[in-house]
Amino acid sequence: MIAEILTIGTEVITGSILNTNAQYLAGKLMDLGIEPIYHTSVDDNKERLRNVFKTSLDRADIIITTGGLGPTQDDLTKEVISSTLELPLERDSSMEENIRMMFQNMHRDMTENNLKQAERPLGSQFIENSNGTAPGIFINKNGKKIILLPGPPKEMIPMFENYVAGLIKEDYTIIQKSANLIGIGESALETELKKLDVYTNGFEIATFAKDGEVEIKIIGKGKVRLEVEEKVNEILDIINKKFSEFIYGYDNIPIEELVLNRLKEKRFKMSLCESCTGGLITSRLTGISGASEVLDRGLVTYSNQAKIDELNVKPLTLENHGAVSRETAYEMAKGLIEKTNSDIVLSITGIAGPLGGSIEKPVGLVYMCVMTRDNYKIYENHFTGNRTSIQNRATIKAFYEIFNFLR
Amino acid sequence: MIAEILTIGTEVITGSILNTNAQYLAGKLMDLGIEPIYHTSVDDNKERLRNVFKTSLDRADIIITTGGLGPTQDDLTKEVISSTLELPLERDSSMEENIRMMFQNMHRDMTENNLKQAERPLGSQFIENSNGTAPGIFINKNGKKIILLPGPPKEMIPMFENYVAGLIKEDYTIIQKSANLIGIGESALETELKKLDVYTNGFEIATFAKDGEVEIKIIGKGKVRLEVEEKVNEILDIINKKFSEFIYGYDNIPIEELVLNRLKEKRFKMSLCESCTGGLITSRLTGISGASEVLDRGLVTYSNQAKIDELNVKPLTLENHGAVSRETAYEMAKGLIEKTNSDIVLSITGIAGPLGGSIEKPVGLVYMCVMTRDNYKIYENHFTGNRTSIQNRATIKAFYEIFNFLR
Repeated sequence: MIAEILTIGTEVITGSILNTNAQYLAGKLMDLGIEPIYHTSVDDNKERLRNVFKTSLDRADIIITTGGLGPTQDDLTKEVISSTLELPLERDSSMEENIRMMFQNMHRDMTENNLKQAERPLGSQFIENSNGTAPGIFINKNGKKIILLPGPPKEMIPMFENYVAGLIKEDYTIIQKSANLIGIGESALETELKKLDVYTNGFEIATFAKDGEVEIKIIGKGKVRLEVEEKVNEILDIINKKFSEFIYGYDNIPIEELVLNRLKEKRFKMSLCESCTGGLITSRLTGISGASEVLDRGLVTYSNQAKIDELNVKPLTLENHGAVSRETAYEMAKGLIEKTNSDIVLSITGIAGPLGGSIEKPVGLVYMCVMTRDNYKIYENHFTGNRTSIQNRATIKAFYEIFNFLR
Repeated sequence: MIAEILTIGTEVITGSILNTNAQYLAGKLMDLGIEPIYHTSVDDNKERLRNVFKTSLDRADIIITTGGLGPTQDDLTKEVISSTLELPLERDSSMEENIRMMFQNMHRDMTENNLKQAERPLGSQFIENSNGTAPGIFINKNGKKIILLPGPPKEMIPMFENYVAGLIKEDYTIIQKSANLIGIGESALETELKKLDVYTNGFEIATFAKDGEVEIKIIGKGKVRLEVEEKVNEILDIINKKFSEFIYGYDNIPIEELVLNRLKEKRFKMSLCESCTGGLITSRLTGISGASEVLDRGLVTYSNQAKIDELNVKPLTLENHGAVSRETAYEMAKGLIEKTNSDIVLSITGIAGPLGGSIEKPVGLVYMCVMTRDNYKIYENHFTGNRTSIQNRATIKAFYEIFNFLR
């Protein structure tokens, strides 16, 4: 089964935004046993969209579009596709009611153009959008499945997962499994991987580097799910044995979620104090629903005065050793655990750059301290990259150290 | 002049890597006055690549491909394109010499397949690759310009900048300007826009919604740069007059950067205390180099106890009005400004969801308080969307309120 992913929007075409939708959908289609052979993007232009869509109809069995479903006049997807397929648009009264209600709940005036979103091509189904105003559309015509989704990923992704996947699933298996590693570089990892007996015909094993971590991805394909699964698990076992010290998780579950779950199991309360990461660690943690069961507080003690006031760091320590030092990391953690009821705290202080580095303390030097009531550990790290990259790497590493400290 | 960007490679098609090449090339082509209307990706398959390339030849004047130029057998780009164009491959003796030398210098054995890289379609030119072994190719046939570049961005980007840009530059200008707005919805904005005299032939005015903000983008095109510039500025003036209360900036400079700059000008120190945004506001601010000149500290007082300990919020206030209330937002700000030397503080407390809402206090209800030594203002907000979306919208709105408070 061949799929085409059609991304519609001038903002993609002009390079204003990165086309993450195509990547997301491609990965998901692979999981469903469907090969997303063609990815096409086109601007918000009626004639060109029509031509591109016709080409897709010729070469693909499943077409998924993103973008162009909004209420404004440069949103053309539904109109062009319904007219190309000769399925007239009709207004759905219950959807109209939904839209009116939604605006009422938001205390906002509904303009007439919003009612465009209550229209769907004859014989098609709406796909519910819980995170925005534009519903999706599912069309099944002459053996072709056509799915229209909105462009914003935070609307599109839940719609795909909750509804679309079930509408298009195939009797062919592609299984992808990932192991997530921290503390080993991509090329060293690949060199080691190549020495293992993991490469099999029809199975792909690839490595991908992200800020501060590496993913090993196994892609297996075949008719019989059980056989594919068994072989993928065999490969994963070999990888597990070889790289156990670096693997923190599987299938790209964010490390902050693993940390949060482990803390919940232990019924631990945690607090954080950050300097160079400036709140990133705390905000990653509070991005997960249920963080309030675990997190008591996070203090971003950016200035020296804040470190003294909030965490009782000694002025003499800052003077003698500097804000970026083992000693300051230790005192930050100690100050935090003493002033709170937390079972575990993390402190972090470093130089995110681009300014502020020196020969003894270069940009990328970061100290962390993880402390419980009866134990503590200090970590020295040297990260590379620009400011964002160093902050991201330090954040990932901080979660990794908490994770390890707890196991 | 219409361009098509052709990304060739199974790793893009399966979603294993993000297609950053298309975004990079699109932006660069726009700068050169060329419209990158079509972006297409296809896997490493001879027949499908041939068909995709034929479609590109039909609809574009300039075709830029990336990927598939390496020495291995799944690298097909040069072969397929030369045969489609009926330009036989010929071996270039000086390139052959180069390749032999390169391997000698690297003390590596050259295998026969490396000599594939010394071949080019009849009448075409090589494009030098200083960061890898695969040279690019420039073909000019029947008025069509076809450029083949390698896939890795660190090879492709310098080749584009140093050679390709000069080969395809047009005497045509495209100018893009954006206004960034907060506090107005996309469809209301468009309704108002339509009433203005801003729509001109050959100029595009589009709106894009992001979390909590909207962008108006003007794309002007024409032969004479000065004329295009003048017209774009005229349109921008009209938009400025109409939407002044909502416009916070231009050309997508993040609002946190604008806030930071304004605080620097005023030599203000700021501190923040966050509950529902969990450190996101602080981390967005500290993502910018130079934040330390402005930010004293950020306190993520997630638990009630933290609000009492850190900000001197009265337990009775929490009991009578709840943590999400005007009164708590006010006391948080007051506690923070009293314990620090900050000139301005912001507090924020709300319900990010998905749990924790009630009928009186639904998910999305967020209070903020901005306070200086002699003034304060409290804001009530109702945001929609999932947890991430509410946190993002609240963050953007918080920066906007600080920005407004300062003007």
